Amino acid sequence: MSDLDQTIGFIGLGLMGRPMALHLQRAGAGLVIHNRSRGVVEELAAQGMTPAASPRQVAERAPMVIMMLPDTPAVEQVLCGGEGVLAGIQPGALVIDMGTTAVMATRRFADLVHGRGGEYVDAPVSGGQVGAREASLTIMAGGSEQAFARAAPALAAMGTNITHVGAVSAGQVAKAANQVIVGLTIGAVAEALTLVKKCGVDPAKVRQAFKGGFAWSRIMELHGQRMIDGTFEPGGKALTQRKDLQQALELAQVVGARLPATALNRDLYDELIASGDGELDHSALIKVLE
Amino acid sequence: MSDLDQTIGFIGLGLMGRPMALHLQRAGAGLVIHNRSRGVVEELAAQGMTPAASPRQVAERAPMVIMMLPDTPAVEQVLCGGEGVLAGIQPGALVIDMGTTAVMATRRFADLVHGRGGEYVDAPVSGGQVGAREASLTIMAGGSEQAFARAAPALAAMGTNITHVGAVSAGQVAKAANQVIVGLTIGAVAEALTLVKKCGVDPAKVRQAFKGGFAWSRIMELHGQRMIDGTFEPGGKALTQRKDLQQALELAQVVGARLPATALNRDLYDELIASGDGELDHSALIKVLE
Repeated sequence: MSDLDQTIGFIGLGLMGRPMALHLQRAGAGLVIHNRSRGVVEELAAQGMTPAASPRQVAERAPMVIMMLPDTPAVEQVLCGGEGVLAGIQPGALVIDMGTTAVMATRRFADLVHGRGGEYVDAPVSGGQVGAREASLTIMAGGSEQAFARAAPALAAMGTNITHVGAVSAGQVAKAANQVIVGLTIGAVAEALTLVKKCGVDPAKVRQAFKGGFAWSRIMELHGQRMIDGTFEPGGKALTQRKDLQQALELAQVVGARLPATALNRDLYDELIASGDGELDHSALIKVLE
Repeated sequence: MSDLDQTIGFIGLGLMGRPMALHLQRAGAGLVIHNRSRGVVEELAAQGMTPAASPRQVAERAPMVIMMLPDTPAVEQVLCGGEGVLAGIQPGALVIDMGTTAVMATRRFADLVHGRGGEYVDAPVSGGQVGAREASLTIMAGGSEQAFARAAPALAAMGTNITHVGAVSAGQVAKAANQVIVGLTIGAVAEALTLVKKCGVDPAKVRQAFKGGFAWSRIMELHGQRMIDGTFEPGGKALTQRKDLQQALELAQVVGARLPATALNRDLYDELIASGDGELDHSALIKVLE
């Protein structure tokens, strides 16, 4: 791994952000960190990272600021709030949003950063907490060639399959498409295994029969097994999946894309959440069919 | 490959059946063949196979009869017709149905064969014409342990991943589930790539970004590429996919399984077929979204 001889700001140290920041430190970077809840900041400060009192203070000290936040309103607040990144941004700074943020909002955030002479890369991830822990995240990046080239060494410390998809927001478009496929494929596996069980056939044998064929997918491999076992510890929460599907549907409306199966899939997640199972893994969707 | 020192009857020598029969011959079996249209029979007779004038005559000469027919009515006709397999079946004969046949009909056909002292295995396949040509079919089998053990050497000459899923009809249940997943995953990839294109992002880059991640599947690999290229030579026809989805939905109704996404997927295939594209590859589903 190349030596990251630079200062990197990191805002958002949750289940994903914490291991990602640690990988950057291990790769040689000096970390300036901020998080809404303080416990994790104190823990990481004890491991040599530098705490900052606000996103503004992170931006004042770091020429590269990474955000790993739960949703679009959180990015808006961290970026544009009174003590936000934009209030402290250095000339020529690079801002990287690695969360799953709405496409149209991403374009607006990038414009604001460009307006202050900075650069912007959206680099959302797939692969979940396991990918974050093992530095094996899939990273889908949007931004100029120059900005992506600058972000690439840091991204390489956190992920494996890193693709420069296109201009600013192209990474978020890819992530929205990713979530559409994940939700719909979970739905596909759930309906197929429900049919199999209702016919009195062993779903584990059927999953085995599918290996390597056209019905095979990462979702069948991992989430199909969870459905067979009936173990739904997240993983990716149903609530998060529902949020991502809703975000994709709102984007589809803006750009005029017809997504009927995605809309139905969102409705099924609404059912699951209404029955009190929103905190379960998204593979728990099979429960609304049973 | 083990030497198939036996006589095998083969009925249905279409795009799938023809290469499958040739693999059996290459593995050492003596083939007795029948097909509704005569051209392929004459061609294969010139290569050393023995033509029979009817399914009955095939059954009279072969202790193992394989059927590879387009749909359930064709199986009914070949098995139960006046000159059908049941009219000529040998004591202890094994009948193997490798087509995609309705589950409830399969149970009835097996009962009829058992009633004549024969054995029955349903062994539908996945992998299409390429799999048939390359003897790399995925085969999902239902039947007794004894019947499956008897069928296994012949199946091994035609496929690679061969799974004994369960009792008679379990193979057809697995195949129905397979087709549900294939149809829904094609739909998922189609909606995702439509969203990406409408956002002005390069779908080939997005497909690249998905490699190995949760959005990755055999369907994204193969059919996703077809959607990006806009080339829809079948492969698997939309009409066949629609038939298989309808068959799965009818089965779901009998056993009380809820398959809302499958029903929507069938409706989208109906739209595609109504617009005159039923003969295209099933990945052409993306056309109804555009």
